[in-house]
Amino acid sequence: MYDLIILGAGSAGLTASIYASRYKIKHLVIGNVFDGSLAKAHLVENWPGEKSIKGSDLVMKFYKHAKSFEVEIKQEKIIEVDRDSNNFIVRTGLNKIYKSKTILIALGTKHRKLGISEEEKFVGKGVSYCVVCDSAFFKNKITAVVGGGNSAAMAAEMLSEYASKVFVIYRKHSMRCEPLILDRLKKNSKIEIIHNTNVLKVAGDKKVEFIEIDKKYKNNNKIKLDGLFIEIGSVPVINFIKKLGIEINEGGYINIDQNGATNISGVYAAGDITSGSDNLHQIVTAVSEGAIAVTSIYGDLKKK
Amino acid sequence: MYDLIILGAGSAGLTASIYASRYKIKHLVIGNVFDGSLAKAHLVENWPGEKSIKGSDLVMKFYKHAKSFEVEIKQEKIIEVDRDSNNFIVRTGLNKIYKSKTILIALGTKHRKLGISEEEKFVGKGVSYCVVCDSAFFKNKITAVVGGGNSAAMAAEMLSEYASKVFVIYRKHSMRCEPLILDRLKKNSKIEIIHNTNVLKVAGDKKVEFIEIDKKYKNNNKIKLDGLFIEIGSVPVINFIKKLGIEINEGGYINIDQNGATNISGVYAAGDITSGSDNLHQIVTAVSEGAIAVTSIYGDLKKK
Repeated sequence: MYDLIILGAGSAGLTASIYASRYKIKHLVIGNVFDGSLAKAHLVENWPGEKSIKGSDLVMKFYKHAKSFEVEIKQEKIIEVDRDSNNFIVRTGLNKIYKSKTILIALGTKHRKLGISEEEKFVGKGVSYCVVCDSAFFKNKITAVVGGGNSAAMAAEMLSEYASKVFVIYRKHSMRCEPLILDRLKKNSKIEIIHNTNVLKVAGDKKVEFIEIDKKYKNNNKIKLDGLFIEIGSVPVINFIKKLGIEINEGGYINIDQNGATNISGVYAAGDITSGSDNLHQIVTAVSEGAIAVTSIYGDLKKK
Repeated sequence: MYDLIILGAGSAGLTASIYASRYKIKHLVIGNVFDGSLAKAHLVENWPGEKSIKGSDLVMKFYKHAKSFEVEIKQEKIIEVDRDSNNFIVRTGLNKIYKSKTILIALGTKHRKLGISEEEKFVGKGVSYCVVCDSAFFKNKITAVVGGGNSAAMAAEMLSEYASKVFVIYRKHSMRCEPLILDRLKKNSKIEIIHNTNVLKVAGDKKVEFIEIDKKYKNNNKIKLDGLFIEIGSVPVINFIKKLGIEINEGGYINIDQNGATNISGVYAAGDITSGSDNLHQIVTAVSEGAIAVTSIYGDLKKK
């Protein structure tokens, strides 16, 4: 029985744990440290104080800081979160049950799928949502990244360290990534940006061999390639928490107030899964939301 | 002529600069890196990833990150911020004038004064508002810290490394600092907490010799000591910006909306000087507010 269970072990969840330990809140963290979007980030260049750091290294720094307080961090798969009359109940993949007075949801987001024909079939056979995980498999191969934001741009940059060619295919007329990163893409001789174009299909025999697009590229609707990386944004991970009746917005993000509270008493949320921080979804906003939510929880627990 | 001038070079201002550089916003930072409350913090233990780091070291990490983009950071004293029909105008102590399209105010807070008799007279002669600056002067001396929050508690802890005795004098019945720090104070044999007590007067001949309090301590209203450290919170630094007509709340903090915008078009604020982030005033909230405000400014500038 805990005062607080933190669901998620990314930047929001681990910062929340650091603050909870300092407030001496009896708490538990459940989540896979290496499964979040920070852990899978190729390079992080906007965490103040670290000019350039691997996402996995940064999340490990957060993890070690959180663990320095001897908190329990269970690397278990969350199956469902529910409640009885008094407590919240978290069931995990090890058939375990944990109970708490309050819950902080910091489960982040997962990659959005493109939704094209054969996409699922070729996952692991040329289709990937994780450049950090898979780029090394594409040494001297032809690849494409779908998307126009920062994650697509940084994915292309990282892929270019391995692949012989990286197409960036974006449906709009100009990339929406940071200008600084866009400059680097334009200077990179391996990278070619194809604008105003949608990918319609990924195809091949046993593995990916080509894609079809809705515009001509060099007089052809097909581009031959070995790898297709899909980086078209994220969707909040809310499937485990549906029973709680938490209010979410039309994008699927959890609505929080300025204290980090959701519409359900005792349930708070922080990080990429929320609609807070003007929807910026950065590491700096996630850690801030984690600290704010736990401070509110500390106040709530003291009142009880 | 700049697109953005950032006033203040603490955690909010420097993070804002990092983001502004990544957005390629032509900007200038004006502020003294070593004059902010982060720079003067003895130890920071709640910045994720750094278990324990000197405030001055952490602000230098932020500074170096910001400088890696070759931004101008002017260590000049700000005299006044005003506007003409088109631009904002910042006057500095070097009789210089800088102009910009937008302004981000990240000037933080300064120490609150106790307001007792002779307080001003003894500043530098036993009265101090900065333990990091002055504690080494009190080796084997008797000292007191006034206050009950985290800064008072951490001040007492640091002072105890030098002084022979550290009284912590707080007007309420229990310290409001983090329980973890309070535990350490209680275990520290040099530290003695005196509750429900106000300091009425600081006195001496050429330097501080004793204080008067409103309760008896060992049958006496006086405590002999050499140093009095005042750690009773902070007030926002808003004296330079009065001409802009920015809306502030009753505590003197700048009201911002969820974008970091003030009531004046083109003027944004971030960090300890604002009423944002549920008034938490942490480093994590300051960096988040800095990133959010600059992202909004980037959007504004692109529209123009």
